[in-house]
Amino acid sequence: MCRFLCYKGKPILLSDLLYRPKNSLILQSYRARERTVPLNGDGFGVGWYAPDISPTPGVFTSLTPAWSNQNLKRLTEHVKSPCFFAHIRAASPGMRVTEENCHPFQHGRYLWMHNGGIEGFYQIKRRLRQSLPDQLYHAIGGTTDSEHAFAVFLSLLEDTDRTISASEMGQTLLKTIARLEQWTAEAGVIGPSYYNFAVTDGQAVAAIRYVSDQRLEPISLYYSAGKRFECVDGVGQMAMADTGEQAVIIASERLTDRQSDWVRVAPNHLLTVTPDLKVSVELMSVERRQADL
Amino acid sequence: MCRFLCYKGKPILLSDLLYRPKNSLILQSYRARERTVPLNGDGFGVGWYAPDISPTPGVFTSLTPAWSNQNLKRLTEHVKSPCFFAHIRAASPGMRVTEENCHPFQHGRYLWMHNGGIEGFYQIKRRLRQSLPDQLYHAIGGTTDSEHAFAVFLSLLEDTDRTISASEMGQTLLKTIARLEQWTAEAGVIGPSYYNFAVTDGQAVAAIRYVSDQRLEPISLYYSAGKRFECVDGVGQMAMADTGEQAVIIASERLTDRQSDWVRVAPNHLLTVTPDLKVSVELMSVERRQADL
Amino acid sequence: MCRFLCYKGKPILLSDLLYRPKNSLILQSYRARERTVPLNGDGFGVGWYAPDISPTPGVFTSLTPAWSNQNLKRLTEHVKSPCFFAHIRAASPGMRVTEENCHPFQHGRYLWMHNGGIEGFYQIKRRLRQSLPDQLYHAIGGTTDSEHAFAVFLSLLEDTDRTISASEMGQTLLKTIARLEQWTAEAGVIGPSYYNFAVTDGQAVAAIRYVSDQRLEPISLYYSAGKRFECVDGVGQMAMADTGEQAVIIASERLTDRQSDWVRVAPNHLLTVTPDLKVSVELMSVERRQADL
Amino acid sequence: MCRFLCYKGKPILLSDLLYRPKNSLILQSYRARERTVPLNGDGFGVGWYAPDISPTPGVFTSLTPAWSNQNLKRLTEHVKSPCFFAHIRAASPGMRVTEENCHPFQHGRYLWMHNGGIEGFYQIKRRLRQSLPDQLYHAIGGTTDSEHAFAVFLSLLEDTDRTISASEMGQTLLKTIARLEQWTAEAGVIGPSYYNFAVTDGQAVAAIRYVSDQRLEPISLYYSAGKRFECVDGVGQMAMADTGEQAVIIASERLTDRQSDWVRVAPNHLLTVTPDLKVSVELMSVERRQADL
Repeated sequence: MCRFLCYKGKPILLSDLLYRPKNSLILQSYRARERTVPLNGDGFGVGWYAPDISPTPGVFTSLTPAWSNQNLKRLTEHVKSPCFFAHIRAASPGMRVTEENCHPFQHGRYLWMHNGGIEGFYQIKRRLRQSLPDQLYHAIGGTTDSEHAFAVFLSLLEDTDRTISASEMGQTLLKTIARLEQWTAEAGVIGPSYYNFAVTDGQAVAAIRYVSDQRLEPISLYYSAGKRFECVDGVGQMAMADTGEQAVIIASERLTDRQSDWVRVAPNHLLTVTPDLKVSVELMSVERRQADL
Repeated sequence: MCRFLCYKGKPILLSDLLYRPKNSLILQSYRARERTVPLNGDGFGVGWYAPDISPTPGVFTSLTPAWSNQNLKRLTEHVKSPCFFAHIRAASPGMRVTEENCHPFQHGRYLWMHNGGIEGFYQIKRRLRQSLPDQLYHAIGGTTDSEHAFAVFLSLLEDTDRTISASEMGQTLLKTIARLEQWTAEAGVIGPSYYNFAVTDGQAVAAIRYVSDQRLEPISLYYSAGKRFECVDGVGQMAMADTGEQAVIIASERLTDRQSDWVRVAPNHLLTVTPDLKVSVELMSVERRQADL
Repeated sequence: MCRFLCYKGKPILLSDLLYRPKNSLILQSYRARERTVPLNGDGFGVGWYAPDISPTPGVFTSLTPAWSNQNLKRLTEHVKSPCFFAHIRAASPGMRVTEENCHPFQHGRYLWMHNGGIEGFYQIKRRLRQSLPDQLYHAIGGTTDSEHAFAVFLSLLEDTDRTISASEMGQTLLKTIARLEQWTAEAGVIGPSYYNFAVTDGQAVAAIRYVSDQRLEPISLYYSAGKRFECVDGVGQMAMADTGEQAVIIASERLTDRQSDWVRVAPNHLLTVTPDLKVSVELMSVERRQADL
Repeated sequence: MCRFLCYKGKPILLSDLLYRPKNSLILQSYRARERTVPLNGDGFGVGWYAPDISPTPGVFTSLTPAWSNQNLKRLTEHVKSPCFFAHIRAASPGMRVTEENCHPFQHGRYLWMHNGGIEGFYQIKRRLRQSLPDQLYHAIGGTTDSEHAFAVFLSLLEDTDRTISASEMGQTLLKTIARLEQWTAEAGVIGPSYYNFAVTDGQAVAAIRYVSDQRLEPISLYYSAGKRFECVDGVGQMAMADTGEQAVIIASERLTDRQSDWVRVAPNHLLTVTPDLKVSVELMSVERRQADL
C-alpha cells in the first residue's frame, strides 16, 4: 500500500527529512507504523525541484529497497530542494516490481504519487487508455493503476506545460477521482478504491485522502504546516518558524512523535498548498465532481 | 537491432552454445559481425524448456549486458535443454532498457523473439491493443513493438494453451506480419519495417527473415541443420550426426567460421522446424497473407 | 541475521520447497517467525547441484528481495535437484548489500551459508586473511564475515577439489569455528558470535547450531529426515517415504506447521548428512577442537 | 581500460558536460575513439561536490551501462557543481562488474579514478593491504587494483580529513605510483602497468599520464584550460572566458572536435590544478620518487 511524503518550503537537504526524523520514511520502508503489514520494500523513488536549474524535477528511482540503497543516501545528502516528493512502494498483488512502476511518476513539470489502489483497475484500463491523447498514451511506461491515474489527471489539464494554481490543481485531482469512480461504477466494480494521491508542479501541491466507500477508513494521511523543519543533533524535527522559513510536509505517517506537530487529514478531504505555503483543507464536494463529468 | 539464436535438438548445455562457439552470442553482445554497430548491450534473456518438468519454459532476463552477467554464466553452465531461445538486445531509440522489455517474451508455453523494428509502431499501437482480447491486453508488461507483435501472434491462435504444428505456427507468423503490415499501411507509415521473428512452443519452431520494403536487404539470419552441436576443447562446433542426435540452430549470425555449417535464409523466407527436426524453408506468400486478413 | 535451508534427497523442483510450504523460505523473506525482526530482504541466493552435468553447483544471487524476484521464481520452477541450498539475507549493520555478499558462497564444488555473525570480525580480519593461501585469498569477492569464514573452512581442507565424508566435513566445520574463536579470543573480543553454518560438496552436508557464549540461545535450526517432501494441492509438506525417496531438510525455521515433521537441533550441536542420507547429530566437542589448533 | 573526465571551474550542469559535447563521455561508453575496443559498458559513476552543502562529494554509481541509465540522465540534468568526476568502466579481464568496483571511489572528501591497470596486481595485493592502516584496510569494498591504489594514496596522506595543496596532491600521487612500482618490481612482475589516475579533494585536482615501461605509449589524456565550457544549441563546447568563468577539464579523450581546445598531456607527465584554476604540467621526476620511498 506504500508510504509517501511531500515537502514544500525553504530549501532543505533531502536526507534531513528522509532519514533523520524518528519515524522517517526510510524507516517506514521496513517498519511502517500505520499499516497492517509494516513493509514497503518494493522499490522507491524521489523527485525534487531545482528551480534555478529547470522547471522539471529530477527523479531517482530504484527497485531495490530504500533502506539499503547507497545511491539514495549519497544523493539525498548532497541535494537541497524547496519542493520534493518521496515514495516507498509495497506493490499490490499482481503488480510487478520494476523501475517503471516506481513512484513518483513524472511528466514535464509534474510529479505524482499514489498510496492505495483502484479496485477493478483491469476492468477500466482499456477505457481509461482510450480516453488519453496520444502523447499521454505513449508516455506510459509501466503497468500500475497509479501511473494510469496520473495520465488521467494530465489529460484533464489542457496543457501539461503550464503551471496551475493550487485550487485548480485540487479541482483537477477531484475530477480525476470522479472520472475513475464513474468508470469503475459503470464497469460494475463493487469493492472500494483507495485514492491517496499527491501531485505538484513544483509550485503548488495537492493531496487527497479518500476511499470510495464512505463506511471505510481511508489510508492515513497527515500534514504539518506553519513550522520549520530542522535537524538537531542528527534528529529531524519541527520547530517554530519565522515567515519565510516555514514549510509544509504531507506524509502517510507522522514523522516525529510530538503529536502537536501533525494534523491528521480528515477522511475524504482535499489538501492544497499554494506556492506561498497557504494550506487549505476542504471536504471533497461529490456533487461538484459529478457535475464536472 | 539485437541478435538472437534458437536451438532445437538433443539436450545440450546452454553455455556450450551461448559461450563456446567462436562467434558466440555472448561475444556478439559487444562484437557482432553483421551489424553496423557491433553492440547489443541493452539487456538479454534466455528461455529454455525442461519437458520432463513443465510444458512452459523457464526464463531468465536482465538489463545488464550479457557479457558480464555472472548469473547467466552460472545458470547456463548447469542447465541442459532440448529447446531454448536466447536474445541480446540493442534497444531501438526511445525504447527503454528495462527487464520488462527484454526478449524472449513468454506466454504460457510460447517464447517469442524479435530482431528488427516496426516502423511507425506508435501510429498503430492503439489499434493493435484494441484488437487484443483482455487476457493478452493485460499480460503486456513492457512497451516494445516486439512484445506487442507477440500479443498479435497469440491472439491469432485460438487457444494459447495448445501446441500447434510447425506449419500452422509458420502460417500464424505470416498472418501476424500481414496484420502489422496492413495496419501500418492504413496508418500511412512510409518507412520499412524489419520483422525477423522467432517463435516456439517448445515443440515446433518458426522463424522469419523479412523486410517490408522488397528493395531492401532484411536483417541477417542463418540456420544449421542435420548436424550435431558439440564442444571440443572448449570450442563449440558443428559435427556430423547420427539420427537422433541432430540439431537445428537458427541464429542472426553464423556462430562458427566454417561457412559450410550454415545456410543463409533467403530474404523474405519463412523457416519452420517440426518437433522431429524437419526443416522447411519457403518464400513468404504475400497473396495468401492478404487473403487471410 | 538471515534464514536458510538445505535440501538433500530425491531430486525435487526447487520451487516446491522454496515457495510452497506454509512457512516457506520466500515467505520468511518478509515474515520470518523466529526472528525479532521478521525481515530478510537484503538479497538472496540459491545454489543447486546437477550431478549429471557438473560436480560444481549452479548459483543464482540477487540483491533485490526474494519475494518479488521473477527470475528466481521462473528458474526454480524449471530446475530439479537432489541437493540445493537457499538463503535470504538480513545484512548485519555496516555490511553492504551487494551481490558479492549474497549467500550461498561457492568455491569449486562447495557451497556455504551462514546465519549469524562473528563478533569483532574487523579485529580478526587481517589475521584471518593472512592465514589464507593465495588462491583463497584472491577468490574472496565480498566483504562479509560469512565469506571469510568459508575461506577458513576451505583452507582447512587440503584440497578443495576432492569430496570428503560427512564426518570429515563436520570435523572441518568444528575446526573452522575453533580457529575463529581462538582468533577472536586472542584479539580480546568480548561479545558472543553466532555460528549457524551450513556446507556441502553436493554429496555430504554439515550444519551447525552454535553460539560462542554458552549462556545464550543459538539461532534457531531445525531438520526433517526420513520422510519425503511432496507438494499436494500446491502446498509443500512432508510425507512418509520408502527408502530411496527419503530426504533431509535443514532449515532456520520449520517450513510446515506439523511439529512432528521437524526436530529442533540442540544448542551447540553438529548435524551431518551422509551421501546416502544418514543423519548424525552430536554435541560439539570443545576439547577436540582446541587440540586441533 | 575505461574513460574518465574531471571538471573544475564555474558551477555547470553535469549533463552539459557529460552528454552534450560531440564526443561526450556518454558517447564514449559505446563509441570511444582512442581505444582499440570502443566499449566502456561495465558500469559507471559520477561524483560531485556541493560546497555549500558538504565538504564530501555525492556519488552515484551503477553497474548498468551509462548510455541507457535514466537515473544518471535525470540526476545530471538537475545538479550543478564546480567540481566533479565521471568514469565509464571497461572491466579488466577477471575483474568483476559490481557497484563496489565502479569508479570514482570516494573516501571522506576525496574522489579517485583510474584508467589503466596494475600489472601483477595479485602478486602485490597482500603486501599492499598489509601496508594499510586499519581504517583504510576495512574501508575497501571492492576488488579492483584501482581502489587499492586509492587506499595507498590515502595512506600516504597523514590525515584524510584535511585538504591539501595541488602540489602536495601531485607529489602524493607520484609517491603512490613509486610505491606500486617498487612493490611490483620486488615481486618480479615484468609487464607494464598503466597508471592514469585522477584525484581531487574538491579544491585541487591532480592527474597523471603514465606507463611504467618508458618505451610504450601511455593511455591518452587531454586537458582544456583557460576557457569556459558552455552549451550552445544543445552542443557542449569551449569558449573564451573572462576570469572567474574559467574552467579546467581533464579527459581521456577530446570531448570536442576543435583540436585547439585541447592539450595532449605528454607521456609520464603530472597535471595539477590549484583551487583557483592554475594548471601546472611537469615531467614526473623518477629520482625524487625513489628517494621518497
